[in-house]
Amino acid sequence: MKLKVDRTILLKALAHIQSVAEKRNTIPILANVLIEVQDGMMTLTATDMEIAIVETIPAESLENGAVTAPASVLYEIVRKLPDTAQIELTHTNDDMPLSLRAGKYATSLNVLNVDEFPSMTSGDFPHQFNIPTETLKKLIEQTRFAISTEETRYYLNGIYLHIMETSEGNKKLCAVATDGHRLARVESVMPEGSENIPGIIIPRKTVYEAYKLLEEANDEISLSVSDTRIQFKFGYITLTSKLIDGTFPEYERVIPKNNTKILRVGKQDFATAVARVAAISMERSKPVKLSLDNNSLILSASSVDQGNAKEELDETQVQYDGGPLEIGFQARYLNDITDQIDSQVEFVLADNSAPTIVRDVDDMSALYVLMPMRV
Amino acid sequence: MKLKVDRTILLKALAHIQSVAEKRNTIPILANVLIEVQDGMMTLTATDMEIAIVETIPAESLENGAVTAPASVLYEIVRKLPDTAQIELTHTNDDMPLSLRAGKYATSLNVLNVDEFPSMTSGDFPHQFNIPTETLKKLIEQTRFAISTEETRYYLNGIYLHIMETSEGNKKLCAVATDGHRLARVESVMPEGSENIPGIIIPRKTVYEAYKLLEEANDEISLSVSDTRIQFKFGYITLTSKLIDGTFPEYERVIPKNNTKILRVGKQDFATAVARVAAISMERSKPVKLSLDNNSLILSASSVDQGNAKEELDETQVQYDGGPLEIGFQARYLNDITDQIDSQVEFVLADNSAPTIVRDVDDMSALYVLMPMRV
Repeated sequence: MKLKVDRTILLKALAHIQSVAEKRNTIPILANVLIEVQDGMMTLTATDMEIAIVETIPAESLENGAVTAPASVLYEIVRKLPDTAQIELTHTNDDMPLSLRAGKYATSLNVLNVDEFPSMTSGDFPHQFNIPTETLKKLIEQTRFAISTEETRYYLNGIYLHIMETSEGNKKLCAVATDGHRLARVESVMPEGSENIPGIIIPRKTVYEAYKLLEEANDEISLSVSDTRIQFKFGYITLTSKLIDGTFPEYERVIPKNNTKILRVGKQDFATAVARVAAISMERSKPVKLSLDNNSLILSASSVDQGNAKEELDETQVQYDGGPLEIGFQARYLNDITDQIDSQVEFVLADNSAPTIVRDVDDMSALYVLMPMRV
Repeated sequence: MKLKVDRTILLKALAHIQSVAEKRNTIPILANVLIEVQDGMMTLTATDMEIAIVETIPAESLENGAVTAPASVLYEIVRKLPDTAQIELTHTNDDMPLSLRAGKYATSLNVLNVDEFPSMTSGDFPHQFNIPTETLKKLIEQTRFAISTEETRYYLNGIYLHIMETSEGNKKLCAVATDGHRLARVESVMPEGSENIPGIIIPRKTVYEAYKLLEEANDEISLSVSDTRIQFKFGYITLTSKLIDGTFPEYERVIPKNNTKILRVGKQDFATAVARVAAISMERSKPVKLSLDNNSLILSASSVDQGNAKEELDETQVQYDGGPLEIGFQARYLNDITDQIDSQVEFVLADNSAPTIVRDVDDMSALYVLMPMRV
């Protein structure tokens, strides 16, 4: 194998794939990147057996072939070469290291046999559809904060993607995440070809890796789905991932139907008041109490060691006519949700122990459910 | 006590002092800031019993008095208030909390008795002198990286400041730090009034706290020194610190006198080559070998797992006529030193096991000594 490639192009590809390569080196081949050269194209693959990322870039192929070499060392070296460097990679036979040259810099990288490199990308995907990049970004952005990190509830360690039929009989593509304390659901127009996908749970790591690639993607990407795997195609980059093998709970049951008390408040006013009031508490959960009365909201928090704090929002900032109500939430959970909201927040409340709905007044496609806490 | 103060002014003062307040709360009073108000001035003090920072800011004093309150909570709250806020602080009597108000935000902070707050700032300082801010910055910047972190060698856990007489009979103010593997010494013009200071060891934390304040200081600051303490005066801010009670080793003996082989190389060429070559190694020490011959330098490194790397610098980049020599250094130690050097690095070498001198060709006031390692 022999090729020449621009340092800038190679660096970008290595940056995309190297975070998937195993760092711990328990299975040495998984720390390596598979490099394949064929007729003017160079293909790089990294995998941890759960996720594989494959990227194809242009290169001057002098001799077709394939090799595997340590991903993170290769990335570190290429990162430190000058912007304009031309990199020459040469591998003559299996017993020899991979040689990398750029100007007066030369390195020999230990290789492992190409046959040992596991393949994850082949296999059938019965469902395939295109989805606007902005839509997929929104589905991920507005739900991923609620993904559970509790390993025992592994079926909550991802985003549940499925087709939902609304009460009006419309079908929507929905993303849902929950950790039992809060739930986030975002719905979008159902892309053509996605009608019959099974409900799937996309693992957290896949969600974050895919999101990074979405930030550089074209307007539309392609998704392929089977019962056990998902594949994202972003132009010259393909991410293939296993799905979580489990059943997502029937989350619809925790979305309250009969809450009637509506509070509307400016996102900025509310979020900064929550942060200021919660600053008094050193606890991780930082409980904040909302004391509501008609067109008035007092936020307060207290701490045995430090003291207490409160802030009042008045009728110029708050719309509410549900009568007196005191209810507590974790400050962080409130801020995670308000971070997703542009200008006006709507709470739909029942009482101080019932799940509360939170929405963006200007965008009803996202819905959040938050469990109160005793304060 | 009652006062009004601009949020921006108070925030800046709290930012200066809060890092000194104890976070762990083992002695509760040390987690507090002492606030004193007297005739239009507000004084804030924080201490961990090793260092005390005192800052005076203008405030509208409505009633003179003093109180202590939790430093980090106060800082967090003030940080989250709007830029333009006017803050009102009120403390009526010892049994009451400190009240803070800003617009519709109000907090009550638990207080501790002012009498419990330890004083560190009084006492005699027999030596006092002024020093240009840029000079003190340089003395710290170019030596602090070499401060030892080994707690057993506590007398190396700081910068040694002392008066040195050069071979020409001139007196200089010198800063020295060493961890046994490398040594850094910077000399400056001796400020008037510093002639008779004892050799003192300024603890690492003090060095870093003082440096932060230097970055905002006026052109000149005042230093006061006794056998056990040092005091920095930056305008309205005073930092007082205990010194390390120990004897700094006679470091002059480790500065080689008879090294004769001189290597000169561009700082940028050398530093990037070191980083690129060292990238092959996953070891923390990242050993790099320098193979010298007349007007030629090859840097190389190898790793059992990853492979090896080398880079050649040629006669357009290297000046050396000492004949063949191979010598190894830790990559990080080399880069710590080249970080201090502007454009041309000079190595003064003897052989591959002897301490090596490193200097900035354009600034002989700083001198570094580096122990080689076997490669």
